[in-house]
Amino acid sequence: MTTLTGESLIGSQTLLGEGNEFTATAPARSETLIGTFRNLNLAQASQAVEKAAAAFQPYSQLHPHKRADFLAAIADQIEAIGDPLLERASAESGLPMARLTGERGRTCGQLRLFANLVREGSWVDARINPALPDRQPLPRPDIRRMLVPLGPVVIFGASNFPLAFSVAGGDTASALAAGCSVVVKAHPAHPGTSELVGRAIQAAATQTGMPEGTCSLVHSDNEVAQAIVAHPAIKAVGFTGSRAGGLALLRVAQARPEPIPVYAEMSSVNPTVILAGAMQERGTAIAEGLAASVTMGVGQFCTNPGIVFVLQTGKLPDFLGTLGAKIRDSVPATMLTPGIRDNYSRGIGTLTHLPDVTLLAQSETNARSIQTEGRPAILTTTGNAFQHNPALSHEVFGPSSLVVVCANETELAACLQTMEGQLTATIFATDSDLTNSSHNWVALLQEKAGRLLFGGYPTGVEVCEAMTHGGPFPATSDSRTTSVGTAAIERFVRPISYQSFPDALLPLALQQANPLGILRTVNGVKV
Amino acid sequence: MTTLTGESLIGSQTLLGEGNEFTATAPARSETLIGTFRNLNLAQASQAVEKAAAAFQPYSQLHPHKRADFLAAIADQIEAIGDPLLERASAESGLPMARLTGERGRTCGQLRLFANLVREGSWVDARINPALPDRQPLPRPDIRRMLVPLGPVVIFGASNFPLAFSVAGGDTASALAAGCSVVVKAHPAHPGTSELVGRAIQAAATQTGMPEGTCSLVHSDNEVAQAIVAHPAIKAVGFTGSRAGGLALLRVAQARPEPIPVYAEMSSVNPTVILAGAMQERGTAIAEGLAASVTMGVGQFCTNPGIVFVLQTGKLPDFLGTLGAKIRDSVPATMLTPGIRDNYSRGIGTLTHLPDVTLLAQSETNARSIQTEGRPAILTTTGNAFQHNPALSHEVFGPSSLVVVCANETELAACLQTMEGQLTATIFATDSDLTNSSHNWVALLQEKAGRLLFGGYPTGVEVCEAMTHGGPFPATSDSRTTSVGTAAIERFVRPISYQSFPDALLPLALQQANPLGILRTVNGVKV
Repeated sequence: MTTLTGESLIGSQTLLGEGNEFTATAPARSETLIGTFRNLNLAQASQAVEKAAAAFQPYSQLHPHKRADFLAAIADQIEAIGDPLLERASAESGLPMARLTGERGRTCGQLRLFANLVREGSWVDARINPALPDRQPLPRPDIRRMLVPLGPVVIFGASNFPLAFSVAGGDTASALAAGCSVVVKAHPAHPGTSELVGRAIQAAATQTGMPEGTCSLVHSDNEVAQAIVAHPAIKAVGFTGSRAGGLALLRVAQARPEPIPVYAEMSSVNPTVILAGAMQERGTAIAEGLAASVTMGVGQFCTNPGIVFVLQTGKLPDFLGTLGAKIRDSVPATMLTPGIRDNYSRGIGTLTHLPDVTLLAQSETNARSIQTEGRPAILTTTGNAFQHNPALSHEVFGPSSLVVVCANETELAACLQTMEGQLTATIFATDSDLTNSSHNWVALLQEKAGRLLFGGYPTGVEVCEAMTHGGPFPATSDSRTTSVGTAAIERFVRPISYQSFPDALLPLALQQANPLGILRTVNGVKV
Repeated sequence: MTTLTGESLIGSQTLLGEGNEFTATAPARSETLIGTFRNLNLAQASQAVEKAAAAFQPYSQLHPHKRADFLAAIADQIEAIGDPLLERASAESGLPMARLTGERGRTCGQLRLFANLVREGSWVDARINPALPDRQPLPRPDIRRMLVPLGPVVIFGASNFPLAFSVAGGDTASALAAGCSVVVKAHPAHPGTSELVGRAIQAAATQTGMPEGTCSLVHSDNEVAQAIVAHPAIKAVGFTGSRAGGLALLRVAQARPEPIPVYAEMSSVNPTVILAGAMQERGTAIAEGLAASVTMGVGQFCTNPGIVFVLQTGKLPDFLGTLGAKIRDSVPATMLTPGIRDNYSRGIGTLTHLPDVTLLAQSETNARSIQTEGRPAILTTTGNAFQHNPALSHEVFGPSSLVVVCANETELAACLQTMEGQLTATIFATDSDLTNSSHNWVALLQEKAGRLLFGGYPTGVEVCEAMTHGGPFPATSDSRTTSVGTAAIERFVRPISYQSFPDALLPLALQQANPLGILRTVNGVKV
């Protein structure tokens, strides 16, 4: 296995932090893993930002094919690490090798998807309105517009996807694809995985001749991380994590003399609505599917179905019986960190003691503390209680779900109306459920979420052009964006127009001969 | 002339405010105009928001052609008012009839442009990834994505475009086009113009059968306006005006439990850079063009060229001589309001008394106070002074410009680097100016502005697909957007994805048969 030095990686250089020392813990064994890491102090972390600032202009002006080569080379270098990467990630996260093999595939797939997007080039949304010198009463000048990168950005690694949403994950890939230089703040729960991937990026940058400082990896505490967000050279922030963590960064970004965009993906309970006809037709099958979705990955997905709305109907006992049985049969499993496990246990404990909340079932196997296990659980409450107690709609990150039993559709609709913004919302319904209802369920859910599912389970986020992994606040801090799929690149750009520019001074994407061969909009028509 | 009642227009209803009474003043005569207006109190203003909230779902779900009909009908109704609209606007703003005739054309042109955009329909950026049931290791579900409106929004009328950026201006047109219901806060400097246009919108809404409350016009003070921004039902804000005003709204929006986007177009000094070769070749012609641009519309454009950077070369005296002569020959003219005129006079006075600032020239005609006139002026300073005194880069809204004389290109580049974000940046250069320079001027200016001009004047903002009227903070509060041109619609939408939805439940834009006949992206390819 590659030796871990515990250093931060500043462009092509390494830098041993002068801040606190820390180690990684294997949650499955509660054991310290090899490798000692050192946080950067503020002056050291600023070096990464200053290098990113110096790299921005040359990096953003590279031929897009060079950027594509860099992204593809990162994927190659990650694969070249081989099993040691998966083993370290598994040790640090407690996630099984099979899951991490899949996640590595997704990570490299994302990098290559963005490489292809950049190589193809049309994503810059080039628009051209040629001059009309004879127009009356005034001539029109030549105006050409495209998307350009915002500047250096900082990306925070997420704990729950140590590969796909960490150092070379979706946020980094989309920011680099856009032409931004990137400072990645490593997640302290998987510093070794971060270092390995950071070195893969370093190797790819050297191999493809990227400007020095295009991408850096820093270990730091929260205070230094916030100072990076506040640094004048930083122009945007990507974050996936807790609501408290995301809001803290948002506050820092808003308090800057120059406020900057923060893309924080924070919290979501992903409501699932089961209407009466669907419950009647296939309630037990839905219960089985839900149990699998709730416990998948020990419930550690942003898209975990945390709240299930059902109606008080004759088939409800069968549904609850099947769901309860599946959860009782499920087994506890290792969670990402002791802190996450503790929050989960505390969250379930708090819910259980609230009035009108019943613990319907939990895994019949006890969670082993030393293995940092989370014990799957299903709770129930009433629609009336849900409407009147906001605590019931808070996210409990882990393998649990709260079933809200509503007296009727009016109560169910009222419950939905009280909910905050969500990443996803799911509806199970028959044709007659929808046509005979006085509520427009799809319209109601659409106002609350970034992705609507019909008769499915929200876990599993496809990486493709049509994906929206985002949603109204507080699911994210910016509902106008997605953090998964090709549209994620749009977070890191702004439009710029060139008026009456000589052709040779224009970016390639806007030159008259269209040397990049991209799809452009000329006088409103795609050509 | 249509009678002005001084009421607010809440959907199809009228509502006489119970707040303060106010009148409009004709700045050209310092006379009170007919019509007494009454501000709404908070409870009254909330009615407009609540109606907009109730209208949002039905309005957003109308067939897009219906929305297009509404927008086109607003244009028709505005034209149907005829000269009384222009006369009132001219009286309230001091702007000449010819300018307002053009501005009305632009206003109606914008409405029809957005009507056509919505009728054509492809702007929703529909993306489809069909199901791949046989994909290994996991099948892919059907995923379809489009842009949907954010919700009810509030738009603040701007003082300097009483038609094109006021009640039925670009912000309102783009928000209505997106499918948002709209509450317009009338600008108190032209309440009569606002009422006339508001009634045109009312008539158009009735004529085309819009849901009640789709658009309202409110008169209010700033406190009530801020309460509207803070109302939970409001999902975005559009504003054009002062930096202080925009930042106040931004703070209110950020302090909400659910923060919302604010599109504030605030302040810009629109730097113009003249390099040595261009000065040598055509310095006096540039001086003439600049004088015209500076004094156009009494300098009351966001894109007024407020700072001009020149180099200390042999042709500089000719340039300054011509510029000074043109300004001395220019005549003072009526500004929009006494407050704007006072700010302008004070701004010039403050600048003149700063060290290293010289009043090069001003109009030889005195400004008449009773006619609220602003007196054109040109000041000069040094590159060294500019770099070290931030006050020199503050916007002075009105017919003036500050010429910054730099010792050399290094000093000029340093000056540009100290500047904040701008709406526009202009460069005059010859080929050899650019090829022989050690500075990448275009790259430098690109980081600072939303629109770059080569050898032109920034006043005059073309309404077209390729326009960016926006720029890095503080030119706007959100550099990722434009407030002019078709892309302005993107400010009021978010993406949403539908997974495994029955075709009949999908929005028309995403249905398999493509009933709207729009351009869509299927598996990454435009079809």
